[in-house]
Amino acid sequence: MNRRPLRTEIPRLKPRGEARPATRVDIGDLTPEPLPYLGHAAYFELGVFEGLSRAVATAPNLESKEGLSAAAGLALAKHHGLIAEIRRRGSEPADVMAPFAPALDHFRAITTGSTWYELLLSCYLTAGLLDDFFIRLSAGLPGDVGPRVAQILGEDTGTDVLVHELQAAIAADPRLPSRLAMWGRRLVGDTLLVARSAMHASGNTNEDESRIEPVFTELIAAHTRRMDGLGLTA
Amino acid sequence: MNRRPLRTEIPRLKPRGEARPATRVDIGDLTPEPLPYLGHAAYFELGVFEGLSRAVATAPNLESKEGLSAAAGLALAKHHGLIAEIRRRGSEPADVMAPFAPALDHFRAITTGSTWYELLLSCYLTAGLLDDFFIRLSAGLPGDVGPRVAQILGEDTGTDVLVHELQAAIAADPRLPSRLAMWGRRLVGDTLLVARSAMHASGNTNEDESRIEPVFTELIAAHTRRMDGLGLTA
Repeated sequence: MNRRPLRTEIPRLKPRGEARPATRVDIGDLTPEPLPYLGHAAYFELGVFEGLSRAVATAPNLESKEGLSAAAGLALAKHHGLIAEIRRRGSEPADVMAPFAPALDHFRAITTGSTWYELLLSCYLTAGLLDDFFIRLSAGLPGDVGPRVAQILGEDTGTDVLVHELQAAIAADPRLPSRLAMWGRRLVGDTLLVARSAMHASGNTNEDESRIEPVFTELIAAHTRRMDGLGLTA
Repeated sequence: MNRRPLRTEIPRLKPRGEARPATRVDIGDLTPEPLPYLGHAAYFELGVFEGLSRAVATAPNLESKEGLSAAAGLALAKHHGLIAEIRRRGSEPADVMAPFAPALDHFRAITTGSTWYELLLSCYLTAGLLDDFFIRLSAGLPGDVGPRVAQILGEDTGTDVLVHELQAAIAADPRLPSRLAMWGRRLVGDTLLVARSAMHASGNTNEDESRIEPVFTELIAAHTRRMDGLGLTA
């Protein structure tokens, strides 16, 4: 839901490098290298799929198992959409993803959580923030790759079931909100580190990063809205 | 690959209940109850997906991880295709699958294996045999459900990657073939029990079962060909 305004903006993006008023900050001014960008995003989506399929396997009942399996399928479809873009460029997906595997495997390991609800919150928040981020970063990709990638990443994520399960658990257990709120605060820090490393891996500098600081502010604001929607203090 | 002859046979199926020569044994003479059939097959495919996504998560390298993620997606698509058939009949998938969850969860637990290669062999052999079985059983479903289900279950399973990984490992480790051969023999017994319970859950009797004994013989023959293809003694 947070992504809808972004998607409608995409067709109105100006050509790369066109002069803009100095006050306008646009992540589309950054021009990520397509292959590292695709490898990073593809491996991230594979991690989202792995998190969700772990949630499927450990779901406490068949309804949530079924709903989560749909969400896992949607994450996997994003991954395979990006893999198709890598192949379209004549590259081997495993080679292109390899440089990002160690850091993202570590990221996934530390964000898996110790309970099923922590896992659900992690899937919801980290994919929410990084899908947003990769969509924004896609605006600077050359040719028609950017719009295609934005389309792939902007597809429905099936997270309704995650929100529903979390809201029900939070309503039922008075100790859960403070624990999950703490977990959410930890997640956002680790997740923003992935976004920063994606920028750098795509060939951007610290200077670029400070220039797009407002984008990070927006990503955090969207994160806060997701936390609010669950009744959690961000 | 083993399923190709079957799929081409489907359009030539005779109407249900039509008289046939006594020597002809056809599983299509059995008329499974659609909802139990769909619930059983759907939950089985979800289990295949869970096994494959576990294999994705524990894959030793990115190439096999990537190939297995495609296979996991194809199993999940079969599951969701069957779920759509359940919803089309106005039923709640979780309710329809629930009676089969305990036995299939147990089946998955005992067929997961203790190594990544045992897991791969299990995904390959159990899905190979039971996809075949459910496709054959679908011939007795009323109306146009049968052909649709056969189409869903007959889709590509992406198991080339499983075969490739297993063949490479078997070639590299001289102790592996005997261990995997033993594992394969255990799997076929447990898997045939699932097939028998699917028949009974669909309202068929022991008499029906003995009548279609040749079908079980064919399922076992196909299993043996899969084992042979891996260089394993069935």
